[in-house]
Amino acid sequence: MLYFEDLAVGDKFNTPEHTITTEEIVAFGRQFDPQAFHTEATDAKASLFGQLVASGWHTAALSMSLMVRGDMQLNGGVIGQGAEELRWPRPVLPGDRLRVIMEVAELDSVPSRTGRGRVKLRCRTFNQEGKIVQDMTANLLIARRTPV
Amino acid sequence: MLYFEDLAVGDKFNTPEHTITTEEIVAFGRQFDPQAFHTEATDAKASLFGQLVASGWHTAALSMSLMVRGDMQLNGGVIGQGAEELRWPRPVLPGDRLRVIMEVAELDSVPSRTGRGRVKLRCRTFNQEGKIVQDMTANLLIARRTPV
Repeated sequence: MLYFEDLAVGDKFNTPEHTITTEEIVAFGRQFDPQAFHTEATDAKASLFGQLVASGWHTAALSMSLMVRGDMQLNGGVIGQGAEELRWPRPVLPGDRLRVIMEVAELDSVPSRTGRGRVKLRCRTFNQEGKIVQDMTANLLIARRTPV
Repeated sequence: MLYFEDLAVGDKFNTPEHTITTEEIVAFGRQFDPQAFHTEATDAKASLFGQLVASGWHTAALSMSLMVRGDMQLNGGVIGQGAEELRWPRPVLPGDRLRVIMEVAELDSVPSRTGRGRVKLRCRTFNQEGKIVQDMTANLLIARRTPV
């Protein structure tokens, strides 16, 4: 389990993969983003995308689930304060196989209100063709080995 | 149904409300963010939060579901390219009643690659005490009445 002191700018971490299904896209869409291009394959043809695509929030949630199961295991867990520059440069399609690469972009030595360390983590989600479907810089609070 | 030309900087839009339950928090947590403070009320007591809290991605997805059902009904749907400055300044707790206020922050008159208009929309999610639980500026592509 990693602490703030174990991280260095440039460190990279990987995650397992997940293949997203039509059923998952539609189920998430119906619950959280009920628009035709996320819920109805036929109606989706008339949309900007021309086919069924995953909600960006589904991509974000799936990326989180991969990161939690990835090889960056943080003591005290992944506490996110938010994100900067969350972008979805291309849509996620049924059958896409996703994985995330995380990279430590910045370490802030000034302790947070809770005494934790602040880390900017660039998290890129790739599809099976190696193309980026989500690019995000997350702001995390990470426990210190030596409390301050 | 609104088009890009119908929007002006400063326009505000509202959404219905949703009260989040413990069951919803745990179900989302198990699927997308399996960490004790999102999935186990007892174990959550030992976490930074001291209790069960919603995943930030759950707050984001719920906010999207409220926006889709809100009074900003866009022709062609809400096509998000991403977000800037996504922040979760305080946790969402079981029983919190959430709603979103959207405000047009910026209109970009240069057409996108798809001919749509670009809009920056500030989306603040409030709890029942009027406190902000999510503050996000989203980048949207919105259909024009007059195609370019």
